[in-house]
Amino acid sequence: MSGSTYGTQFKVTTWGESHGKAVGVVVDGCPAGLPLSEEMIQSYLERRKPGQNKYSTPRKENDTVVIESGIFEGKTTGTPISMRVVNQTQRSKDYSELASLYRPGHADYTFDQKYGFRDYRGGGRSSGRETIGRVAAGAIALELLKQLKITVTAYTKSIGTITIDYSRCNRENIEKSPVCMPDLEASRQAEEYLKQQMEKKDSTGGMVECIITGMPAGIGEPVFDKLDANLAKAVMSIGAVKGFEIGSGFQAASMNGSEQNDEFCVDEMQRVQKKTNYAGGILGGISDGSEIIFRAAFKPTPSIGQLQNTVNNNGEAVPIIVTGRHDPIIVPRAVVVVESMAAITLVDMIFQNMTSRLDKICEFYMK
Amino acid sequence: MSGSTYGTQFKVTTWGESHGKAVGVVVDGCPAGLPLSEEMIQSYLERRKPGQNKYSTPRKENDTVVIESGIFEGKTTGTPISMRVVNQTQRSKDYSELASLYRPGHADYTFDQKYGFRDYRGGGRSSGRETIGRVAAGAIALELLKQLKITVTAYTKSIGTITIDYSRCNRENIEKSPVCMPDLEASRQAEEYLKQQMEKKDSTGGMVECIITGMPAGIGEPVFDKLDANLAKAVMSIGAVKGFEIGSGFQAASMNGSEQNDEFCVDEMQRVQKKTNYAGGILGGISDGSEIIFRAAFKPTPSIGQLQNTVNNNGEAVPIIVTGRHDPIIVPRAVVVVESMAAITLVDMIFQNMTSRLDKICEFYMK
Amino acid sequence: MSGSTYGTQFKVTTWGESHGKAVGVVVDGCPAGLPLSEEMIQSYLERRKPGQNKYSTPRKENDTVVIESGIFEGKTTGTPISMRVVNQTQRSKDYSELASLYRPGHADYTFDQKYGFRDYRGGGRSSGRETIGRVAAGAIALELLKQLKITVTAYTKSIGTITIDYSRCNRENIEKSPVCMPDLEASRQAEEYLKQQMEKKDSTGGMVECIITGMPAGIGEPVFDKLDANLAKAVMSIGAVKGFEIGSGFQAASMNGSEQNDEFCVDEMQRVQKKTNYAGGILGGISDGSEIIFRAAFKPTPSIGQLQNTVNNNGEAVPIIVTGRHDPIIVPRAVVVVESMAAITLVDMIFQNMTSRLDKICEFYMK
Amino acid sequence: MSGSTYGTQFKVTTWGESHGKAVGVVVDGCPAGLPLSEEMIQSYLERRKPGQNKYSTPRKENDTVVIESGIFEGKTTGTPISMRVVNQTQRSKDYSELASLYRPGHADYTFDQKYGFRDYRGGGRSSGRETIGRVAAGAIALELLKQLKITVTAYTKSIGTITIDYSRCNRENIEKSPVCMPDLEASRQAEEYLKQQMEKKDSTGGMVECIITGMPAGIGEPVFDKLDANLAKAVMSIGAVKGFEIGSGFQAASMNGSEQNDEFCVDEMQRVQKKTNYAGGILGGISDGSEIIFRAAFKPTPSIGQLQNTVNNNGEAVPIIVTGRHDPIIVPRAVVVVESMAAITLVDMIFQNMTSRLDKICEFYMK
Repeated sequence: MSGSTYGTQFKVTTWGESHGKAVGVVVDGCPAGLPLSEEMIQSYLERRKPGQNKYSTPRKENDTVVIESGIFEGKTTGTPISMRVVNQTQRSKDYSELASLYRPGHADYTFDQKYGFRDYRGGGRSSGRETIGRVAAGAIALELLKQLKITVTAYTKSIGTITIDYSRCNRENIEKSPVCMPDLEASRQAEEYLKQQMEKKDSTGGMVECIITGMPAGIGEPVFDKLDANLAKAVMSIGAVKGFEIGSGFQAASMNGSEQNDEFCVDEMQRVQKKTNYAGGILGGISDGSEIIFRAAFKPTPSIGQLQNTVNNNGEAVPIIVTGRHDPIIVPRAVVVVESMAAITLVDMIFQNMTSRLDKICEFYMK
Repeated sequence: MSGSTYGTQFKVTTWGESHGKAVGVVVDGCPAGLPLSEEMIQSYLERRKPGQNKYSTPRKENDTVVIESGIFEGKTTGTPISMRVVNQTQRSKDYSELASLYRPGHADYTFDQKYGFRDYRGGGRSSGRETIGRVAAGAIALELLKQLKITVTAYTKSIGTITIDYSRCNRENIEKSPVCMPDLEASRQAEEYLKQQMEKKDSTGGMVECIITGMPAGIGEPVFDKLDANLAKAVMSIGAVKGFEIGSGFQAASMNGSEQNDEFCVDEMQRVQKKTNYAGGILGGISDGSEIIFRAAFKPTPSIGQLQNTVNNNGEAVPIIVTGRHDPIIVPRAVVVVESMAAITLVDMIFQNMTSRLDKICEFYMK
Repeated sequence: MSGSTYGTQFKVTTWGESHGKAVGVVVDGCPAGLPLSEEMIQSYLERRKPGQNKYSTPRKENDTVVIESGIFEGKTTGTPISMRVVNQTQRSKDYSELASLYRPGHADYTFDQKYGFRDYRGGGRSSGRETIGRVAAGAIALELLKQLKITVTAYTKSIGTITIDYSRCNRENIEKSPVCMPDLEASRQAEEYLKQQMEKKDSTGGMVECIITGMPAGIGEPVFDKLDANLAKAVMSIGAVKGFEIGSGFQAASMNGSEQNDEFCVDEMQRVQKKTNYAGGILGGISDGSEIIFRAAFKPTPSIGQLQNTVNNNGEAVPIIVTGRHDPIIVPRAVVVVESMAAITLVDMIFQNMTSRLDKICEFYMK
Repeated sequence: MSGSTYGTQFKVTTWGESHGKAVGVVVDGCPAGLPLSEEMIQSYLERRKPGQNKYSTPRKENDTVVIESGIFEGKTTGTPISMRVVNQTQRSKDYSELASLYRPGHADYTFDQKYGFRDYRGGGRSSGRETIGRVAAGAIALELLKQLKITVTAYTKSIGTITIDYSRCNRENIEKSPVCMPDLEASRQAEEYLKQQMEKKDSTGGMVECIITGMPAGIGEPVFDKLDANLAKAVMSIGAVKGFEIGSGFQAASMNGSEQNDEFCVDEMQRVQKKTNYAGGILGGISDGSEIIFRAAFKPTPSIGQLQNTVNNNGEAVPIIVTGRHDPIIVPRAVVVVESMAAITLVDMIFQNMTSRLDKICEFYMK
């Protein structure tokens, strides 16, 4: 029991409920010497903030992060970095009627089964607000990766039945699209699609794709801690994710070996390369130096304004309409959460890899 | 660095290379009092053994397990259980020519990048023989789950383009099908499909589906150690797996909330149930008491007899034909590996859950 | 790298520097259902607060704890409990002159060696204020143990050359003694001794003894995670502790087997007992049901007002007088820290032990 | 529950009972490139082997180690190293009469309490034979440390009432003394003392001291994973150890700050040094670059030939004479076990430290 800590060398511990005093995170294992400020962290948090466009909840949450430890004169000191965001929406009245009901698609029932009771206000610990801690920690991981010239870029690949067309994609468009789709035509169609869902008081799912560039070859441990296995866990631990795939992913199941195998070649700078990348940048659980590419499937937002049937904690059948205004889709706000979890995983595995070779350890300590 | 241990309360450490003296596993954290014998473990190992039909490599491997510790008078003692299978095929000559080549789709290149050199005989540590340790440990986990009336059943869902039809499925057929497909008509088509691949000296991918019954509600930790996140890691850590999904999985991305949300109801015995199971038995990372259902996509066997282009460790372009006889598909032999990794994860999470509630802890220690 | 998290099932992560915004702790793995309030935590913190008598620093620190998560309607919810104490003494001017000096007996030099630089204000992360997090977490652990009828009582065994006489000890005197010595005569002598040290601008060491009652037999894991090994780590991780011993401890080195061996007998209620307790309540790393008794040796407070010789970070010899007012002894304020670390360890091991026997696991889940 | 694995980056998992088929260890996390052979491991095992002189049990145990994985062409590959020693003394008849008895000073009673029953043959898992795995793993750690020019040297400091005199000590004498005492006069007295104990069918305790040279400054994590805290756990996890102290140790409790504080100075090569070493080489949990020195107190061998009173598992009082021939002292054979546990801990902490500073990480990956 526990499970609020992720990572072995770069350890992230999130805490906080949606309607408690605050939510936060402690990052232990950040090396000394990284320039870091609240402004830097805040810029990542802005990307997951609600109320930014008409497809996200209009709740106003001024999620302002405060760094409370681990920084001295603008740089990390190597000691734990504690970050905290005060919850401003602590009114409980909106939620009290849900205290005894089990909302379909939510964790109400399973929390009650596990703990005997639950903090029913706004989802408590299973609220999307828990991801504030992930993004704050992810911001640090992303800044560390920058120092190693590694980039992590996620975007919306699909919303409902609307999928991006790679021939029209341009990463610079991610920020121009209100739904983080780098294909602006698909983005417009997706907005239309979302409008329809909102009219029906319904929601929809979607997919996030993530591309990592600049990864050195050799990162990942070959058996249980394969880099792709750890990415899968990291991404599947985001609420609402129902699937994860890397490279050719589920398509690989119907491919032949002669297609899936990426042939090796040598580029003009005599570096080993793969001609194709069905592997998605990882072979045998270890990065091969090419782009890492993975996708995650998100289920539709479970909070919908339609009438649904459910039961209460007395085992009585009751109807439910989830009031309040909820995002018709989780995906655009989840993009930065996916980047965060990927970055945290990469940093942890990059750190773990440093003891793979005796010659490098000797060089580290003895020069 | 390390990564050969999986689990926190039920810890599994595999060791061994394909052409070393032996492969094995240490299971630490198995409770005292479980009846266990080498015969029981062996029956699980038989299911992954090669040479059982024409679609698996005809290499004869008498993978006979020996239990070397942790059992006394037919029962586990609570101390580590060490199990070991001697490698009989230690001839290195088949592989020496591969010492300097990077086989496409294999981990040769990434091992060299990580460690500076590699044991090139038969894949070394990245060989499928590593899964012998997983299956031996999984056998213990599956026996523990039996005591809790929990079953874990995996089978082949697809081979290449051939997919089972649920209307024709019958779990009893799994063992009758040489490719572990519970739909015998699909099984025959799949055999035909495999024959074609073998004639082309090619291989194919496929999917495994796994169903878990009897899980109590409340298992899984709500944030990073979600039950589905840990299942994803466990399954993605099996070599050749490129994707994982639970419940509606990737389909959820194009569904609406009103479809995906499983309404709650009460059955005739007044137990809370879900009318549908798009969730796949897990809500908010915690089991809801219904069937858990997940799928994994396997890439095609990378060893194929066709000519492929690659490079060697001097950066020279060289052609390669992977000789020897290899399975045209990994999936049927991987079915028991998927069951094993799922079972190990379930046991670990069931153990972790025991400290969720103070009243139950007091009852445990004070009655 | 990291090391600010302790425990496996009951996980404690402290954060914060002495002159940062705040110090705090996240406790992950506390079971649901424990009554908990800020007042309860505060009462433990009061015991380590400075300025309570003339032998502790007169700095006024209103260390007021706030619980920010994990509690709902007065009870723990099973999710992480985040607790925080704002640092009121953030003035840095007292310390700036120490920025380049290495104080003898302090961690200044080793922090610089490890991290390249350090937060030099008031000891930074190596400050005694870090123990606020330990005591807040320990308070929860001690409350959990109360529910299981287990008590943990530490007290000052010696101060400098003054040692308690067991024939005059009475646990109720611990709170009456300003230096936590249950022998009030020794307590008076110790006060006199401390006064002498203060006059000399010197400090002194001392010993803490800790007694645990009510422990069920069977707690502790037999190899590396022996209960006494984990207690040793927990206690040695408190700054200034130089030694740990259990039961007969260092005396055992000169004893004979016929003395050290505790003979077993049966009491009037037919329970197995030991006639003596040289073992200190633990045999083979596992609790035997009798009192656990251990001792820790604390070095003298390193901050002293005498002139000392040292060097600065340019390698120049410089004299140093550590100004400010510091405790002449750490021990009385450390008593509650020892209790805390012991309690955290006990809870963790009690939780780990719950999966030792299959029959009890089956009973837990299947009745 | 579990506890047979030690370490985070350099992970050691021991397995095996005294009368099972074999005992062994898996070392996961050894970097690639270390020259290693069975002969090297064996030379360390010889130092703990029984029957080497008249003060150790005359049981003949040909503890021949076999390395079964992780080595290729004479060097470690970075994958798990599995090592195994077959138990030759599997006869159970000597022990069957002890099945129901609780030997004083042994773990019989606590194992029964924990697990419900036990493998009563020769101590089962709590047998001293478990340390074979520790020494085999320690041999690898010691070889790794050699590559970093770090030495770990333990020896007998006292046996019963006989203590070495440092003025007569010479490390080269350790191997000349049958009881590993570097003061040959004390060694002779100790032999005489042991002879007396044997005549009385009694046993005695003793102390081991360990000195580590060549440690770079900066190793150890500042809060819970202090280097001295981890050394304490490592050493206290050896059966029979009742106390651990570092530097001035328990003496520090009666010292003044002006004595205990080691003043800093600069040597002729402009390196920072301490004038004294009461700290024992560690400040604030982090190595300071000077010699690390610690001591461990071992209790007397609990198996003695005298009549003792005990109870059986029916709660009946019974007399017991532990037959068979047992070492009258554990210490000389434990010397190499202490070195092993220290070395494993040092390697783990040296590995963990590699991610302390961003500049060094960037240099590692980007040059």
